[in-house]
Amino acid sequence: MDTTHTYKFLSLNPTTGLWPASDYGNDVIVGVIDSGVWPESPSYKDDGMSPIPSKWKGTCEAGQDFNSSLCNLKLIGAQYFNKGLVAANPNIVLSMNSTRDTIGHGTHTSSTIAGNYVEDASFFGYASGTARGIAPRARVAMYKVGWAEGTYTSDMIAGIDQAVADGVDVISISMGINFVPLYEDPIAIASFGAMEKGVVFSCSAGNSGPSLGTLHNGIPWTMTVAAGTIDRSFAGTLTLGNGLTITGWTTFPARAIVEDLPLIYNQTISGCNSSELLSEVYGIVICDNFGSFFNHENISKSPVPAVIFFSDEPSVKEFSDFPDPGVILSTKYRQDVINYALNGVEPSASITFQQTILETEPAPLVADYSSRGPAPSYPNILKPDVMAPGTLVLAAWIPNVGVATIGNKIVLSSDFTLESGTSMACPHASGIAALLKGAHPEWSPAAIRSAMMTTANTLDNTQNPIKDMGFDYNIASPLAMGAGHVNPNAALDPGLVYDATTQDYINLLCSMNLTRNQIASIVRSTSYNCSNPSFDLNYPSFIALYKNGSYNVTSKKFERTVTNVGSGGATYTAVVTAPEGSIVEVRPKTLAFQEKYDKQSYSLTIIFPSQKNAAVTFGSITWNEVGGTHIVRSPIVVSPSFAIWS
Amino acid sequence: MDTTHTYKFLSLNPTTGLWPASDYGNDVIVGVIDSGVWPESPSYKDDGMSPIPSKWKGTCEAGQDFNSSLCNLKLIGAQYFNKGLVAANPNIVLSMNSTRDTIGHGTHTSSTIAGNYVEDASFFGYASGTARGIAPRARVAMYKVGWAEGTYTSDMIAGIDQAVADGVDVISISMGINFVPLYEDPIAIASFGAMEKGVVFSCSAGNSGPSLGTLHNGIPWTMTVAAGTIDRSFAGTLTLGNGLTITGWTTFPARAIVEDLPLIYNQTISGCNSSELLSEVYGIVICDNFGSFFNHENISKSPVPAVIFFSDEPSVKEFSDFPDPGVILSTKYRQDVINYALNGVEPSASITFQQTILETEPAPLVADYSSRGPAPSYPNILKPDVMAPGTLVLAAWIPNVGVATIGNKIVLSSDFTLESGTSMACPHASGIAALLKGAHPEWSPAAIRSAMMTTANTLDNTQNPIKDMGFDYNIASPLAMGAGHVNPNAALDPGLVYDATTQDYINLLCSMNLTRNQIASIVRSTSYNCSNPSFDLNYPSFIALYKNGSYNVTSKKFERTVTNVGSGGATYTAVVTAPEGSIVEVRPKTLAFQEKYDKQSYSLTIIFPSQKNAAVTFGSITWNEVGGTHIVRSPIVVSPSFAIWS
Repeated sequence: MDTTHTYKFLSLNPTTGLWPASDYGNDVIVGVIDSGVWPESPSYKDDGMSPIPSKWKGTCEAGQDFNSSLCNLKLIGAQYFNKGLVAANPNIVLSMNSTRDTIGHGTHTSSTIAGNYVEDASFFGYASGTARGIAPRARVAMYKVGWAEGTYTSDMIAGIDQAVADGVDVISISMGINFVPLYEDPIAIASFGAMEKGVVFSCSAGNSGPSLGTLHNGIPWTMTVAAGTIDRSFAGTLTLGNGLTITGWTTFPARAIVEDLPLIYNQTISGCNSSELLSEVYGIVICDNFGSFFNHENISKSPVPAVIFFSDEPSVKEFSDFPDPGVILSTKYRQDVINYALNGVEPSASITFQQTILETEPAPLVADYSSRGPAPSYPNILKPDVMAPGTLVLAAWIPNVGVATIGNKIVLSSDFTLESGTSMACPHASGIAALLKGAHPEWSPAAIRSAMMTTANTLDNTQNPIKDMGFDYNIASPLAMGAGHVNPNAALDPGLVYDATTQDYINLLCSMNLTRNQIASIVRSTSYNCSNPSFDLNYPSFIALYKNGSYNVTSKKFERTVTNVGSGGATYTAVVTAPEGSIVEVRPKTLAFQEKYDKQSYSLTIIFPSQKNAAVTFGSITWNEVGGTHIVRSPIVVSPSFAIWS
Repeated sequence: MDTTHTYKFLSLNPTTGLWPASDYGNDVIVGVIDSGVWPESPSYKDDGMSPIPSKWKGTCEAGQDFNSSLCNLKLIGAQYFNKGLVAANPNIVLSMNSTRDTIGHGTHTSSTIAGNYVEDASFFGYASGTARGIAPRARVAMYKVGWAEGTYTSDMIAGIDQAVADGVDVISISMGINFVPLYEDPIAIASFGAMEKGVVFSCSAGNSGPSLGTLHNGIPWTMTVAAGTIDRSFAGTLTLGNGLTITGWTTFPARAIVEDLPLIYNQTISGCNSSELLSEVYGIVICDNFGSFFNHENISKSPVPAVIFFSDEPSVKEFSDFPDPGVILSTKYRQDVINYALNGVEPSASITFQQTILETEPAPLVADYSSRGPAPSYPNILKPDVMAPGTLVLAAWIPNVGVATIGNKIVLSSDFTLESGTSMACPHASGIAALLKGAHPEWSPAAIRSAMMTTANTLDNTQNPIKDMGFDYNIASPLAMGAGHVNPNAALDPGLVYDATTQDYINLLCSMNLTRNQIASIVRSTSYNCSNPSFDLNYPSFIALYKNGSYNVTSKKFERTVTNVGSGGATYTAVVTAPEGSIVEVRPKTLAFQEKYDKQSYSLTIIFPSQKNAAVTFGSITWNEVGGTHIVRSPIVVSPSFAIWS
């Protein structure tokens, strides 16, 4: 339910493409591993839903303030897992011993994936519209493993295992554990079981960016999702008495009237950090000190009815708490506004609120907070896999956790709120995966991930390469956005997929220099077959690591097999863009498929020098259908390997 | 557009009665004499409206910020009148020289009469629902005569005259001039012309109650409307930590979270009139001093997140500005709440907001503010005529005039607001009159007024006599509510009507001891016929006045003629309830009508003593159809006459 808008940003529409092809996810069950759900949220009404798919084996578990009749045709399952939490804290009193969400996170993520249609949703008038999940007819089964009192790995594993046993098609988990080896990572362990059973496993990359090597959930058998921005801005308009009109950023959560008030610039008070000084004036005060936006108590306490700040910080557009009436303007307007305040005749101004601007450019951008690859837990598979909308996503929320404040003391509740993070991006990818599962029930998790990766956009809505907020708006590398920004309608018909089986992942594990016990902890068996170890997983991306500091030239060879999932025979030719300074060789350069499901293999060799200054270089290999429209693109990265994971 | 609810309170429904019978007022044009209109209000969309009736001769006048294309099938006319204002203030600069409303009053009244359907209307979550006017398909023509810079009688007359010339069916004016003789009252003068042309003229009684003799618009040829309450309350729920739950009054205009906070009662601070003292505590503070609700600056300035007041003042439920989170509780809960705050273990409480309670009892009550008869301008006709919903009516508003505040400085805008007054009651009656005109185009203004009066309710929703908030909740007298609370579906089929012609009103004027010039100023001609002066207008109510102080017994005889508007012949018998201490004689006691439109006459004599203590006594005469369902009721009042109009 984000998503009074992101579905449009992602080109989902009722006429063509993935929504109608998948019947909006009607037969698909998504297991969400999170903090629970608020079943009374309008996003969980089941209006228009058909009977529950017969494969469903889960339950609606009764608990505190949670009657088992609260499930319905939309929220089909609700279970909670806290044996680990209770074992570690024997005397704990849980504040809500049921699947009911007391945090809000699980309600937001699950409604983003599959919330039903809700008219007139908004965040206090911002982002208003009819909200809906990315897969608006898919079913949600909530597995609560995140508790206000803490989250335990054993509970996470129990929840994921239960979801798999219950027959979910997709698991979405917007949680992750930083800097833990695969064999100790509960998500890596439990997701292996999901993958074995054919369950798509979608997880968040983390919010530790923009530094490289900060990603969690760097798990070869999951889809790991980075966060991008949305082509949407929330605005207020400042109109000066001299007619100048400037649009700035605001999410002040009420329809305040700020009209024809004196405009005041006075360096004695413009620090906006003294309520005494601010009490000496009445009007719209220009604040020079952007820090006072975050430390706003003095403004709130003063009788000043509105304030103006200046900032070009991109992160301004990532949070939604804006407790005093006002706007943040680009610094390029600072001098004009101050000049008028100082030299105008009876300078005055007005501010209007609650504006939503759509189709802002450029979008998406990689969000600065999004965690970056290479993955500390296993750097030799390129992570993240894809990027999805994650900044200021509107989705359902719980009533008793505040989402905005007015002044110093009024905390506001809303049925929908704006949140930012890879936690919001992952559910978008999970929703798309659910739609793909609905359209192609026969596709494996690897095939679905491959379809989403090879069709992802690398261009933004200005048709230029997607930029990275965290790296001075330079062109985003695959370490930031993976293969690119998800493109659901293209993923419906990718042409070719890079598939992988359970044994392929075991072969990879066998190449990792792990002990037998460590491998066994992941595959949860000691009878696995390590006769054919291979680092070379059949993955739709390529990463080569060099050791920073010492200059040398290395090569790395990959073997890949692609499966034709187009409707009939087809021929593809390779187009390679080598990372700067590297050479990429592909053999053969043409792949001919006789019919659907034919497989063809190719090799790709990167000859790459180590770079100065730990530079990351990147390129791609694209298989273009001859006389057709399919374009099957994989990113290629040459990245330094840092000590932390070496 | 009040009226997410009052239409229900008035039993208007799509299945039976006045709405379907009148096609929702589709062919009826209502001229509204007021402060203008905000044409962009969603209540003025013309979705679902048919072409403008051909009788319409008015215009959509262009002006400042008002393009003539702003009119549509709903708002069919817009004209403004300020020659009088400008003549009196030659150098005036009008802040909005057009029909655009800068006050809000005209937008509220006109949308109450005939606003289109607007989904999800509310006052910050209170009174939420689909708003609509009482006559949702009627047309509005706005005549702006009320200006931010002042209102002039000559402009009022010009506006009313223009409305009549333009072909409106009903004129609604929620304005009036206190204590002015009829021949100097611009509304009396202009409404005479409307009546002559068959235009129903509905006007407000004024907000100078509850004292007797405070009514304006006491004009024999208009319908004068008193204000009652609605069966609706706006509430917040206080839940104490000990489980006690109390519903109180609040319209705090945001969805604040006030949850599990300390509950504080401390006589040092409970005056709630010192922000310093209030700053020493944190929690929900119990305020002993109800005055601090209205003088709330210290509460707003303090960090106290919520407050509790106690009051049983009925007027608490007449205003909607509630700037700090809190509730007003009945004083009967005071001791329980304070006891818990003083003696409970870690006393705590929560408050929830934005509750709307419907079908509250008893309703309606006569609003205390509603002006009372007898009418100073002419006391010998009983005024007001009817009562309609007037307290906290939801209707459309203009964006730039605040409707609520949060704390000391945040002023909020809303598309809909709650207003109280006879200004809100009059449009309800006007809307009903418009529906009746639609259902019975042949009825005269007097017949429409008669139908509304003789069918009005005198019982509230507990089936007890309607009470008067302004007189200690005693049974309301006709001087407060006229014939009673409007009952639109009954008015559709009143059985009998008391009609009156222009000459009847001239005969009344001729009996009034006015000069020829004074009469001429009202009838706007010197060629009127005063050959048959008569105080005894054929009115559907009866008032006898006694001189306070001197004891004597008097009698007053009335002659009345009723017209059968039932579908065929019918016989009626009189049932009289005499005012206490008086005798009422009716001759004959049975009236037989052979066919539709037959007329029959009767006489009614009141023999009444003067009363001690200026007592008002009242009763009724009801003509009951023999073997039928029609009940035709008229109030009878014996009232002291005060010096002010004698």
